[in-house]
Amino acid sequence: MDRITSAKNPLVQQLRALRRGAAGDLMAVEGRVMILEALSCGLAPRYALLEEELPQRELAEALARAGARVYWAPRALLESVCATKTPQGSCCAFDMVPPRSPAGPRIVALDGVQDPGNVGAIWRTADAAGFGGILLGAGCAGPENPKVIRASMGSCFRLPYEKVPDLGARLEDLKASGMAVAVSALDGEDVYQRAPLGDAFVLVIGSEAHGASLDVKARATHRLRLPMRGGAESLNAAVAAGILMYELTR
Amino acid sequence: MDRITSAKNPLVQQLRALRRGAAGDLMAVEGRVMILEALSCGLAPRYALLEEELPQRELAEALARAGARVYWAPRALLESVCATKTPQGSCCAFDMVPPRSPAGPRIVALDGVQDPGNVGAIWRTADAAGFGGILLGAGCAGPENPKVIRASMGSCFRLPYEKVPDLGARLEDLKASGMAVAVSALDGEDVYQRAPLGDAFVLVIGSEAHGASLDVKARATHRLRLPMRGGAESLNAAVAAGILMYELTR
Repeated sequence: MDRITSAKNPLVQQLRALRRGAAGDLMAVEGRVMILEALSCGLAPRYALLEEELPQRELAEALARAGARVYWAPRALLESVCATKTPQGSCCAFDMVPPRSPAGPRIVALDGVQDPGNVGAIWRTADAAGFGGILLGAGCAGPENPKVIRASMGSCFRLPYEKVPDLGARLEDLKASGMAVAVSALDGEDVYQRAPLGDAFVLVIGSEAHGASLDVKARATHRLRLPMRGGAESLNAAVAAGILMYELTR
Repeated sequence: MDRITSAKNPLVQQLRALRRGAAGDLMAVEGRVMILEALSCGLAPRYALLEEELPQRELAEALARAGARVYWAPRALLESVCATKTPQGSCCAFDMVPPRSPAGPRIVALDGVQDPGNVGAIWRTADAAGFGGILLGAGCAGPENPKVIRASMGSCFRLPYEKVPDLGARLEDLKASGMAVAVSALDGEDVYQRAPLGDAFVLVIGSEAHGASLDVKARATHRLRLPMRGGAESLNAAVAAGILMYELTR
């Protein structure tokens, strides 16, 4: 297999652009565990850089079998293309995981959740809690961001997602189809005292700083709040989403 | 007020050391919101660097009133001392928040949770859910880490914590005092089918990679697992902790 040593190599430069979520039809997957997960989900690898000092023959062969061009590279070059601080030893460009419509009856929707760690963790929790998919409203981090991929632990390869530029309009459609629209809101009703939701619902999580937008709140059939019993005024968005997802599917 | 421009200034060098959690009796607090929170919790500020291009007269005066030496500094110097990537515009060395014994009846304990973002988010959730404190076992990130402070949104200034080198022994003592010891474990019983816990308990969250240690698991009166209904095999540690803390205090 070939070796790449120059930071000016076009593949290296493209991986750097992918790290910033720059290219539309490719995504960068970092680290052995995530790369193997992507392969097992049937995603198509294009090319990979593997750190040459590490014993990665097996990973290289798995990638080559799946059709990827595989290159060995020095550690410094790997570090320069990876978004995660912890050295991963490998970085692979895959075809972007294609959007698919979430399959009900339970969907989670994000309204301006920007932090990639939060988006990935919510994606992972939705997958664990048995949700049918995730809607990403305007301004949300997406699967083109390697930190989303990493925080999702591969759930973004499996659980359907869709980017929804006008989340309010989509919520209206879902409501018309018979789903409840539950919006997490600090001024909502206590989730443990909630009016019955039914089995089909979309749970909306608002942005870290401002919560759900006014347009989205206006579509809500339920506004839900977690009780704050101590000194904290709010929760981390991914933690709040996780508590609500498990509570509503209890 | 004075101005600092040299990266070799001893205060700048000490702040850099604090960023790595290096000094035992001081901690670095970054950003206006967290600094004001620390002041309102009665913590003692020693000295602060404020970015000179920003309108921060009010923050400077609040710090000076509380006894801090306040210095203006150029943005590049601020960025070099801050642990967070997002520019915060201010960094202040406070006396370390002193450990205090958690006050029952509900305590959360961390067994090797290394990620500062997770430790901080769990601290924040414990504060919101009405827990009496947090025990930090060996290997956990602590309040000397600016990323813990930030992720806790100031809850680490309020909610009592204690560092516990031998967590297993402490759990044994708590059990002897009549508390249940609930350990989060992938091989535990479904939390929604759990045996009654009682009102007094310590909830133990294990490390991100390996879960709770064998020694800690051996002290458990309850081992609890969240159901995994989809493709994900596990949850982010802070999300799992949040779901369990709210479920057990429902």
